[in-house]
Amino acid sequence: MSTDPRLDRLAETAIRVGLGLAPGQELVMTAPVEALPLARLITEHAYKAGASLVTTLLSDDVSALARYKYGREESFDTASGWLFEGMAAAFRNNAARLAIVGDDPTLLSGQNVEHVSRANRARSKAYRPALELISSSAINWTIVAASTPAWAKAVFPDDAPDAAVAKLWDAIFKASRVDNDDPVAAWAAHNKTLHARCDFMNGHRFASLHFRGPGTDLKVGLADGHAWMGGASPAKNGIMCNANIPTEEVFTTPHMLRTEGYVAASKPLAHQGTLIRDIRVRFENGNIVEAHASTGEEVLNRMIGTDEGARRLGEVALVPHANPIGQTGILFLNTLFDENAACHIALGQAYAQCFENPNLPEDELTRRGANRSLIHVDWMIGNAETDLDGIKPDGAVVPLMRQGAWV
Amino acid sequence: MSTDPRLDRLAETAIRVGLGLAPGQELVMTAPVEALPLARLITEHAYKAGASLVTTLLSDDVSALARYKYGREESFDTASGWLFEGMAAAFRNNAARLAIVGDDPTLLSGQNVEHVSRANRARSKAYRPALELISSSAINWTIVAASTPAWAKAVFPDDAPDAAVAKLWDAIFKASRVDNDDPVAAWAAHNKTLHARCDFMNGHRFASLHFRGPGTDLKVGLADGHAWMGGASPAKNGIMCNANIPTEEVFTTPHMLRTEGYVAASKPLAHQGTLIRDIRVRFENGNIVEAHASTGEEVLNRMIGTDEGARRLGEVALVPHANPIGQTGILFLNTLFDENAACHIALGQAYAQCFENPNLPEDELTRRGANRSLIHVDWMIGNAETDLDGIKPDGAVVPLMRQGAWV
Ligand SMILES: [Zn+2]
Ligand SMILES: [Zn+2]
Ligand SMILES: [Zn+2]
Ligand SMILES: [Zn+2]
Repeated sequence: MSTDPRLDRLAETAIRVGLGLAPGQELVMTAPVEALPLARLITEHAYKAGASLVTTLLSDDVSALARYKYGREESFDTASGWLFEGMAAAFRNNAARLAIVGDDPTLLSGQNVEHVSRANRARSKAYRPALELISSSAINWTIVAASTPAWAKAVFPDDAPDAAVAKLWDAIFKASRVDNDDPVAAWAAHNKTLHARCDFMNGHRFASLHFRGPGTDLKVGLADGHAWMGGASPAKNGIMCNANIPTEEVFTTPHMLRTEGYVAASKPLAHQGTLIRDIRVRFENGNIVEAHASTGEEVLNRMIGTDEGARRLGEVALVPHANPIGQTGILFLNTLFDENAACHIALGQAYAQCFENPNLPEDELTRRGANRSLIHVDWMIGNAETDLDGIKPDGAVVPLMRQGAWV
Repeated sequence: MSTDPRLDRLAETAIRVGLGLAPGQELVMTAPVEALPLARLITEHAYKAGASLVTTLLSDDVSALARYKYGREESFDTASGWLFEGMAAAFRNNAARLAIVGDDPTLLSGQNVEHVSRANRARSKAYRPALELISSSAINWTIVAASTPAWAKAVFPDDAPDAAVAKLWDAIFKASRVDNDDPVAAWAAHNKTLHARCDFMNGHRFASLHFRGPGTDLKVGLADGHAWMGGASPAKNGIMCNANIPTEEVFTTPHMLRTEGYVAASKPLAHQGTLIRDIRVRFENGNIVEAHASTGEEVLNRMIGTDEGARRLGEVALVPHANPIGQTGILFLNTLFDENAACHIALGQAYAQCFENPNLPEDELTRRGANRSLIHVDWMIGNAETDLDGIKPDGAVVPLMRQGAWV
């Protein structure tokens, strides 16, 4: 792969478009060990862009599995707090954050659900200080993807291993807009389109959104003073970054107590190694009061039981059905891609910067309806049959999408 | 390699003999990414031994090189302090420490010497809090080796890559005493031999040692109240560990102001990516006053210029010439092996526990002659012609080695 010019373009796009890495800035990267060729190219581009230091933390699925195979009971409440605290310290010192994702979406599906849930909970808690700096965009950050054998096998189970990896790379390159000579220009044009959509939504100042489709009739109240975001946006350190490569969404913060109705997921959710299929939930006063899934229901219920905020919405995002990722027709089993193929909602932590004033203090955020949680889990609710209306504070209804397309 | 039973035995030896990992203890491991198969097996054995969590930090030579190729001038004074602080925090929380070494001994030999030296200095400074916890044995720790393509190529340049890697593995397994059915028993016997040698040396209470050989006439004064150590020893957390796999040495702390004379290295020193050949130095009042090398002299001079303690001794160690590592006849270009093939000295930081009272406060350590430095660099001075005498406080001379063998 190291000679594919698209891989080098993806690395350059990650640094220049995703992070907008500033000269002198430190970079903290995480990556699955199988993504090492991409991590190496990103490291090169980071130094070329003036990085003061690049530190890559490589993760290994086989080692992660050993814990579930051989670990003692107490092990599952332990997390490497010292490492996450270190990352938080780096971010407080203005280090940029880059994550390469490529995880096996079914890695933990055979393991003890209670152990997986406890381990995730311990990890989320330890990671929280670092995650808050990321989710509040204290620093510039981005996520890009690498095709790995295990992920490719889950997405293309009928292909030979090498063919599956190559097909997934093709899809990643296309979705990440690096299958052309000038990805930086392509991203500039794409960011312009997303910014125009945000301006449109912000101009309307909707009180709520109304989703309708098969199995779905959901009113999502928006937070008071919310703002729509999408595409490149400035981190609090002043650097413009694209936090997701790819990204197709415009998104904002719902009011945590104002979601009503029922909703059916339009795609399976790959959550921490388990595939949850056919999610159906019902909301009352912003809280999930009923949750079902045809597979992975136990994992779903443990997830929404993480804390009080885990059963409330922290994000609502709009993506037209006809978009480069959705059009591949591929179920990526990875949030970064699947959430950008369809309208989605997220349970858990809200993005503090999705407000007209992006620097609100914590208590003011809560007063305006921004949710707090250890988790932030996106799942897909849009498809080719999604109808969406915006509802103004005076009750006026503005049609926004019909059959998955912007009107 | 993953099916070679010796690899699994090396992993088990690392956990049971090297670390003596305690149930419930966290483990922090570092490894070159090429050593992943060994790291995975060590992770398994750690969980089987009751580890609460294993975190592996994988390093990558190609990424490390990118910094020297593309990094800006300021980059070379930067270190990932947040990561090293995190490691120190883990050790303060009683995490065990395991390092897999397998580095390319010539990785940085083509790079700007000043950049390499500055980067090492910045790293050493940032690593110091963690290193002090290791070198004072606050926690149980160990180092084991893995054969990697780059290291194997440097050791066996005339062999085909795969053959070189296999030959180096053979040598590692043999030196690490895992080429037999019961490595744990083999290590118990070996530790007994080393402990007997320590008892012998400690019984004599020598004031100094006198090394003679080709190019060498060196008197090394020993620290007041020093103690000889070797083989398994208890860390301050009460756990018996073998800090080096393999180990053949008995060692103690010299008095930092009492080394006199000249000494020639008996093997090249692979120091942070550069090979330093034919080191010759002269000491006066414990300090190096003259230093030469046939290659790498600039690196040598920068190393001893790191700080005041870098030109003084922090360790003296005795290894008979006839031992399993020396007998391979291989120049490993790696301190873990080469230092255990021959008598050696180390410049820089002393081991605080090499005293009759292993819990002396810092100022008392200094008063007794224990050296302090950001560095601790071992290099080999013994060979088949080494004669060694012990000198008692009253001047009496006790012959210890003749022609590299214990008398
Ligand atoms: Zn989203
Ligand atoms: Zn989200
Ligand atoms: Zn030594
Ligand atoms: Zn040493």
